[in-house]
Amino acid sequence: MTLDYIFHPRSIAVVGASVGPWNAVTQLFLDTLPQFGYKGEVYPINPKFDEISGLKAYPNVRDVPGPVDHVICMIPAEATRQLLEDCVAKGVQTVHLYTAGFAETGEVDRVRLQDELVSIARRGGIRIIGPNCMGIYCPGSGITYCADFPKEPGTVGFISQSGSYSILMVRGAAARGVRFSKMVSYGNASDIDEINLLDYLAHDPETEVIAAYIEGTKDGQRLRKVLTEAAAKKPVIIIKKGGTAAGSRGALSHTGALAGDNAVWEALLKQTGVIRVEDFEEMIDMLVTFLFFPILRGGRVAVVGLGGGASVRASDECELGGLSLPPAPEELVTEIKRFIPVAGSMLRNPFDMGTYRHDWTPVLRALDSWAELDIFLWQIAPEIEPFEEGVYRQFITERRGQILEMFQGMQKPTAVVVHAVEASIGLETLDIMRTRCAEHEMAFYPSIYRAARAISRYIDYHARRGSKK
Amino acid sequence: MTLDYIFHPRSIAVVGASVGPWNAVTQLFLDTLPQFGYKGEVYPINPKFDEISGLKAYPNVRDVPGPVDHVICMIPAEATRQLLEDCVAKGVQTVHLYTAGFAETGEVDRVRLQDELVSIARRGGIRIIGPNCMGIYCPGSGITYCADFPKEPGTVGFISQSGSYSILMVRGAAARGVRFSKMVSYGNASDIDEINLLDYLAHDPETEVIAAYIEGTKDGQRLRKVLTEAAAKKPVIIIKKGGTAAGSRGALSHTGALAGDNAVWEALLKQTGVIRVEDFEEMIDMLVTFLFFPILRGGRVAVVGLGGGASVRASDECELGGLSLPPAPEELVTEIKRFIPVAGSMLRNPFDMGTYRHDWTPVLRALDSWAELDIFLWQIAPEIEPFEEGVYRQFITERRGQILEMFQGMQKPTAVVVHAVEASIGLETLDIMRTRCAEHEMAFYPSIYRAARAISRYIDYHARRGSKK
Repeated sequence: MTLDYIFHPRSIAVVGASVGPWNAVTQLFLDTLPQFGYKGEVYPINPKFDEISGLKAYPNVRDVPGPVDHVICMIPAEATRQLLEDCVAKGVQTVHLYTAGFAETGEVDRVRLQDELVSIARRGGIRIIGPNCMGIYCPGSGITYCADFPKEPGTVGFISQSGSYSILMVRGAAARGVRFSKMVSYGNASDIDEINLLDYLAHDPETEVIAAYIEGTKDGQRLRKVLTEAAAKKPVIIIKKGGTAAGSRGALSHTGALAGDNAVWEALLKQTGVIRVEDFEEMIDMLVTFLFFPILRGGRVAVVGLGGGASVRASDECELGGLSLPPAPEELVTEIKRFIPVAGSMLRNPFDMGTYRHDWTPVLRALDSWAELDIFLWQIAPEIEPFEEGVYRQFITERRGQILEMFQGMQKPTAVVVHAVEASIGLETLDIMRTRCAEHEMAFYPSIYRAARAISRYIDYHARRGSKK
Repeated sequence: MTLDYIFHPRSIAVVGASVGPWNAVTQLFLDTLPQFGYKGEVYPINPKFDEISGLKAYPNVRDVPGPVDHVICMIPAEATRQLLEDCVAKGVQTVHLYTAGFAETGEVDRVRLQDELVSIARRGGIRIIGPNCMGIYCPGSGITYCADFPKEPGTVGFISQSGSYSILMVRGAAARGVRFSKMVSYGNASDIDEINLLDYLAHDPETEVIAAYIEGTKDGQRLRKVLTEAAAKKPVIIIKKGGTAAGSRGALSHTGALAGDNAVWEALLKQTGVIRVEDFEEMIDMLVTFLFFPILRGGRVAVVGLGGGASVRASDECELGGLSLPPAPEELVTEIKRFIPVAGSMLRNPFDMGTYRHDWTPVLRALDSWAELDIFLWQIAPEIEPFEEGVYRQFITERRGQILEMFQGMQKPTAVVVHAVEASIGLETLDIMRTRCAEHEMAFYPSIYRAARAISRYIDYHARRGSKK
């Protein structure tokens, strides 16, 4: 049976909701629901209160008058056995256990308690998400646990064994214009696990790209099967951490996951056609690339921007990341030289535009007509600008907005990179340009190497599959 | 003869200074001098104006009534031959040619023009900085070209073949609390070159650490000699770029430098005892480490912070960067468990503190008494915090300030890392924590890997030299 129903509950009970300014979990799991546009009934459950966050509270999930499809549990682990029994009695479909303190502790009685919850759930036809996790973010249904996640749905399905990674990923990707179909933080994977979720996302019509953060698995064979199927249908991009001895120990005490041998994982992911990424930053880079780039013929890039050192660096990082910088033909150099008023500018690719003051349009138009080129990379190194304050800063900020629109109007796709950022002036520029690119659905990267690596892996992906441009 | 006099001119003439709001170079090279506290005379030189930026202007450097020690030249290349002749006539000591359009263009007549300037200078006893560079930043003398560089002097001497790298480096390092003795952007190195400058810094009593960005050299043998001498006296840290084919082409058209074979450079830098770093970010990391860390016995680190996934990641990156995470002894875990109110926290190193709300003091005190430990690394992953707005955010920001002071009061050194930053909330936190650490002269890094790599290279440096703790 498809897991689709877990994303569309008619009603949600939040067990352990409470009152007062420091009830963080209540704010996360109760208050966000009406704020985020969840249309179903929401029931706070707590015998101590009649009303919580303006909603009528009930002492027990069994006291709720209507049906309860989904339960979010944040009471202590000791009380969860009884809760599960109550949920069975009530006919609940899904229990999300935010509560921690189960198998991940490594303590025998805690492992046993987790197993008992699963037994009760299986008997009663309930599916468990977690324990020790953040649960569901599904913007289409108005379900979230962070108030700042985007309300608009998108096409990326994401599952994460770590709750904090789920937050990192959504925030970082959202800041670059990525939107999600659904996301599940699944923690200890006591019942619903990465295999169930990957299988669901592979068949979910709302999901076009699958992303996952995995610490370990309990069934390598089934995982291989589901990954093979999923990767045949859609891009599947996975972060698998815990490769070092310390990381492995960390994963074990984090979600009770057996991290396993890195080489085994490497082979598994490669053989199944999965794109393995280092961490959530590279994941976001890949998502941005898959969402905002057309299929590319090749990785021949022209690097355009300001600054000699920054251009040298951009060249190095492009090549290290897997893109190539073809030298500009002599006649092209001669042509654009007419439009660049600065002596000593580099014009052979990389192209140092010299200043922001002159009109870049004729130069960009000439570059756009260069046939042996697949992509533009606009490199911005804000901290090389000598003027931090005053009229120049405002001028530069506005000018960059105009140049962004010029690049958007070109035939060839453009990626924007703000790099070499180590101080406040750079952070501010990075923030502004990233936001502008997200609004325009243009690919933005915070380093040249990251841009080059993601784009070249994207080209390789399509080349392997023989995708047609 | 020592180059010390070039940093202490009695007077400076700025040739080509002009008026109007868009005279960027005038703002850089003229206006900054009185603003920055330069005590000598400043003479704008331009036949078209009587007064520039409130200073009396002269038509020619020879018309200045008093002596002129230092000339900053920003007139077009075509007019520089005459200027050099005028400078010889005037008895100028140093000419800094900001002007570009010389050997770096690769054009025969431009290369020849540069050679002619050097001939005139040699004949007249003048030293040339550049052309195609930003010149001198010497806070002790009140000389700068960026208004936002720190006014307080420090102990790092830096030379940069790239002008933009010089700006990047000072800004990024300054934001982390590093201060400079002197810095020279030397561009095409037509006269004063990396060899002269490294030799000077090796003997300069104000310089304790030498940093350099080099694109190429004209004399590998002399460079080897001077690097060997310098590295025997002080830490010498070098960025050598232009390793790829495209980067090499870039370096040539940037400063006319012959980048040379990467393997040759690698061997040269290693044999002379230089620390070679990838780029300016790693340079800043190394500077921060050399300035703010005591000599360490070893690289055994305890990672302390919030978040399971973030802790797993921190473990991996510490080990990849060359530090080791010893597992916490059982009795230590038992002790600190009493003070951490969160079920399921990781307490075996990495240490997940669970929340910001409880008092970290007893936990940190217990950890500080752990004998088999050399360093603390406080990892902050701000984007895992579920609450972006309101009372929590302010609380967390304040709390982090208190925790910073706790770490400062401990026996063992602490590095602070804000990592996993991809969205606005994280950038803001990074900016705040970096500034706080700079004020406290604590080592701050913007990624775990960067922290681990810099600290382990620092340990290796002292181990190689047999430094005593």
